[in-house]
Amino acid sequence: MTDFASILGSLPAAIAPYQGKGKQADYIPALAEIPSDKFGMAISTVDGRDYVIGDAEEGFSIQSISKLFTLSLAMHYAGERVFKRVGVEPSGNPFNSLSQLESENGIPRNPFINAGALVIADVLLGHLGSPKQDFLDYMRALSGNLDLQYDEQVFRSEYDTGHRNAALAHYLYSFGNIKHPIAQVLDFYFYQCSLNMSCLDLARASRFLAMEGQHPFRDERVVSPLQARRINTLMMTCGTYDEAGEFAFHVGLPCKSGVGGGIVATVPGKMSICVWSPELGKKGNSLPGMQALKTFVEKTGLAVF
Amino acid sequence: MTDFASILGSLPAAIAPYQGKGKQADYIPALAEIPSDKFGMAISTVDGRDYVIGDAEEGFSIQSISKLFTLSLAMHYAGERVFKRVGVEPSGNPFNSLSQLESENGIPRNPFINAGALVIADVLLGHLGSPKQDFLDYMRALSGNLDLQYDEQVFRSEYDTGHRNAALAHYLYSFGNIKHPIAQVLDFYFYQCSLNMSCLDLARASRFLAMEGQHPFRDERVVSPLQARRINTLMMTCGTYDEAGEFAFHVGLPCKSGVGGGIVATVPGKMSICVWSPELGKKGNSLPGMQALKTFVEKTGLAVF
Amino acid sequence: MTDFASILGSLPAAIAPYQGKGKQADYIPALAEIPSDKFGMAISTVDGRDYVIGDAEEGFSIQSISKLFTLSLAMHYAGERVFKRVGVEPSGNPFNSLSQLESENGIPRNPFINAGALVIADVLLGHLGSPKQDFLDYMRALSGNLDLQYDEQVFRSEYDTGHRNAALAHYLYSFGNIKHPIAQVLDFYFYQCSLNMSCLDLARASRFLAMEGQHPFRDERVVSPLQARRINTLMMTCGTYDEAGEFAFHVGLPCKSGVGGGIVATVPGKMSICVWSPELGKKGNSLPGMQALKTFVEKTGLAVF
Amino acid sequence: MTDFASILGSLPAAIAPYQGKGKQADYIPALAEIPSDKFGMAISTVDGRDYVIGDAEEGFSIQSISKLFTLSLAMHYAGERVFKRVGVEPSGNPFNSLSQLESENGIPRNPFINAGALVIADVLLGHLGSPKQDFLDYMRALSGNLDLQYDEQVFRSEYDTGHRNAALAHYLYSFGNIKHPIAQVLDFYFYQCSLNMSCLDLARASRFLAMEGQHPFRDERVVSPLQARRINTLMMTCGTYDEAGEFAFHVGLPCKSGVGGGIVATVPGKMSICVWSPELGKKGNSLPGMQALKTFVEKTGLAVF
Repeated sequence: MTDFASILGSLPAAIAPYQGKGKQADYIPALAEIPSDKFGMAISTVDGRDYVIGDAEEGFSIQSISKLFTLSLAMHYAGERVFKRVGVEPSGNPFNSLSQLESENGIPRNPFINAGALVIADVLLGHLGSPKQDFLDYMRALSGNLDLQYDEQVFRSEYDTGHRNAALAHYLYSFGNIKHPIAQVLDFYFYQCSLNMSCLDLARASRFLAMEGQHPFRDERVVSPLQARRINTLMMTCGTYDEAGEFAFHVGLPCKSGVGGGIVATVPGKMSICVWSPELGKKGNSLPGMQALKTFVEKTGLAVF
Repeated sequence: MTDFASILGSLPAAIAPYQGKGKQADYIPALAEIPSDKFGMAISTVDGRDYVIGDAEEGFSIQSISKLFTLSLAMHYAGERVFKRVGVEPSGNPFNSLSQLESENGIPRNPFINAGALVIADVLLGHLGSPKQDFLDYMRALSGNLDLQYDEQVFRSEYDTGHRNAALAHYLYSFGNIKHPIAQVLDFYFYQCSLNMSCLDLARASRFLAMEGQHPFRDERVVSPLQARRINTLMMTCGTYDEAGEFAFHVGLPCKSGVGGGIVATVPGKMSICVWSPELGKKGNSLPGMQALKTFVEKTGLAVF
Repeated sequence: MTDFASILGSLPAAIAPYQGKGKQADYIPALAEIPSDKFGMAISTVDGRDYVIGDAEEGFSIQSISKLFTLSLAMHYAGERVFKRVGVEPSGNPFNSLSQLESENGIPRNPFINAGALVIADVLLGHLGSPKQDFLDYMRALSGNLDLQYDEQVFRSEYDTGHRNAALAHYLYSFGNIKHPIAQVLDFYFYQCSLNMSCLDLARASRFLAMEGQHPFRDERVVSPLQARRINTLMMTCGTYDEAGEFAFHVGLPCKSGVGGGIVATVPGKMSICVWSPELGKKGNSLPGMQALKTFVEKTGLAVF
Repeated sequence: MTDFASILGSLPAAIAPYQGKGKQADYIPALAEIPSDKFGMAISTVDGRDYVIGDAEEGFSIQSISKLFTLSLAMHYAGERVFKRVGVEPSGNPFNSLSQLESENGIPRNPFINAGALVIADVLLGHLGSPKQDFLDYMRALSGNLDLQYDEQVFRSEYDTGHRNAALAHYLYSFGNIKHPIAQVLDFYFYQCSLNMSCLDLARASRFLAMEGQHPFRDERVVSPLQARRINTLMMTCGTYDEAGEFAFHVGLPCKSGVGGGIVATVPGKMSICVWSPELGKKGNSLPGMQALKTFVEKTGLAVF
């Protein structure tokens, strides 16, 4: 049997050459202040075992990783209808691009670029009674951590600096693809991004994607097996912005990243993984994090293909 | 001497075949309700004579024609510095495009596309004590019509439907090229567009462009002779959206149009002209209006070249 | 054990509603003349069994499916260096687009768009003594069919109509990313596309991708296990033009399509598949073929995730 | 009366600060070898007087200035039909861009970008019996210089390095907007660009544009008065690539430039001008040449508006 603990133990050395090569997100103070040499990783297997290394139990800002969970929740409520308002194609453009939206009449390419996630937030506003509290409860249940909290300081900073997201929201609204008041959509969107979680929290919370949609702690389905498969597929083709091809090619697992430096990956049928290290490469994905996943896959042979 | 009255008199017949071929702006009720067969034209010569035909003294929504006057006012206050924040090149794209802005780091191609006009509005907010009142006073003085008013109903409708402009404003703000609060910039911008003026008002108000910047009714300069020349040039190359080349080619005069169906044209040293007819061609310029100008130029030989 | 024969037998009924809904490629006579209701499918398992249905043994023009084999051959010779000249990202644009190439300095997004395949052809010209004959021999050995031939009539038609590919080649040359004479590159490229093969030939020929690179009929490796994995990944993210996301989402297997109506798919560790039916959807992939694969995956549960 | 000789005499001092700031075209040896500090200017008035300064009688490669004359000749033969195959709008993109052509189905934005000039060359091939000789004769007659010659060395270099133009030609052919064999079109196009003329030759040859189309040396019209006006207009809106707005704004005359460092300008009704200096700015127009024109216009007050 693969000795995951020992493989995890080898990762700090493997990523060391990549530390200091990237650039931490600094558009809000709360992100810029994190020590740049943080590194943690957690594995949560389908049979319920957890493995951790480094700063795996320290909370960080999940940012775009939240899109994975809002999408799952939206698919739970609205099923296939979600994909009338957002596509499933890689965008080939940066995550906050407005250009493509223009030529494609307000239908975002996929739910993982910012425009797509804003549409998903709008979908959820139509299904949740108390969107912020409901989403928080959902994440607490998935992670088994009842202490999860939004980071109000991050939220406030996002809101104050998020003019490009506001531009996207107004733009989508002008195409009729956002239906709730823009302030409400942005509020919910910035809250979801500001959620604070650790690698262990995220590995546990995404375990349903490795378990055909089965809730990790409850006798219920988060999404259907087919939906779980499709979310994994979307992570593979679109989960890491316009670097998704590189990730698929070099890592070979479905991944979803965030500018906080976190990356969630799934090995369907086996485990979910979360790695965290704040230094980002040019495309906005954690550079040491990507390297850790690459090394982990090489040593375990767990690539999808 | 050219018999302008008689030439004007021949225009209704000349444009008749073009009426019913265009499409009136209908994004707000106040514009959609105007009878589509309206047609008026006014000429105001540099020696102070006015000629009118048809509905030339009926007010309409000046919309983007306002950009001509805000630009002039901004150049009056800020001179060449205006062109550090906005370019002077034709855009080659529709007037409300966001794509180009993305690849060019938030510097709008010229002051006549919406993005450029929002930046100009922001410039003016830095110079005017009571922006809305000051701009109204300025337009009243230029036109000699002290009864000019903003159309509150049009303003309100613009505000409610102007999500693409809001998107542009947020986007420009994210690049640091809007400096005042976005709500303030949009408020001022939608007010300037909602101004109600007649062909005669506009022909008189733009006469300074045919008079090297000289105020039509006061012993002062609206802009310097060089600035007047440059504004005329900008009208020629960028004044009618991505149809500017066609206008220059077929009309041959500096023009600035608005989606209300108005077009202002200048014949430097001789006269200013305003034509109005609500039906728009595919690029957003009045179809009968363009035809009237073309016929007028053919009959008078007044083209620039 | 899954009864593949019986599942294959159910496919003609499953795809029937999709026949007559697409549009056959007609840019060259040789493609337009094929009866549009042709349908065949072949499976070749890693333990050497073949299953066929319909027109699975009738030859057709492999067109872009050839890119799968030229890439494999180029990786065999040049290894990782191939990816200095061509990327691994989905393009988000049609297969013969020139725009992206312009903004990305002549590095095609991936080896499966036409620009990328032309670069791969150029790479091979540097390694093969008699490119056309060598590639034919390679395909004969992979398929076990020594009678494979280029279709001279298709080749000639491609050459006469292939001005967009010629444009791409000149363009790549201007960036220095094609190094051999353009006529030579185009000649080789059009020949590879004109190869005539049946579903059974293609299923057998692509079996190495399901077998970690192992040659299906010889005791040698076509590519290394890592390379096979990466080619499968590229098929998943980029194999079906700008419909790759849809294929991944709805089919869930690595696929490579051609405008002749063929699609090759792999189930790593288990089998390779080829389906053929000439009617194409809007993005240039066989509409009944995609449906057949979707149904096959649903019935067998063989999706990757 | 304006003392043109004295104003010309003041230009070398005026442009001195701009020499050494640009970059000479170096894509072919014949252009790179010209001493970069060359400067000449010639004026040819409608009443037949010529004024020269500096290197005004030294030949240089006219390059894209040739587009002015091929367009005039094509309009002479094909009239308005020319504009069914090429537009009259500024492109907003670099002169050799392929992107716009893609989204606009093979109709170049205007006749002065390379794609448009290739279409014009194709038009002429349908009207001229011996295209190269006929065009040479035409230019000799217009300039009154019977010694004009193509520069075979420049032609050969253009041909060998002109892959982007070849790409454009193939691309246009794929849209059906080039009708003659591509090799023939490129051959004619590269010859027209390789023509060697002096400032004085070019000022004289373009005098018809200041004279309502009247041939400078013969009792015939080169183009009609309306056509002359439209060509001037096109020069104003599109004659200096994506710097046309800047030229119109800062110079204020219709201009057509070439990468050899020449710029032709017209003052309708008064004179034609040619300036030459090899160092180019970022957009491919002569930097000292633009400055010379700007100064000349400031001192003479000859701007169009």
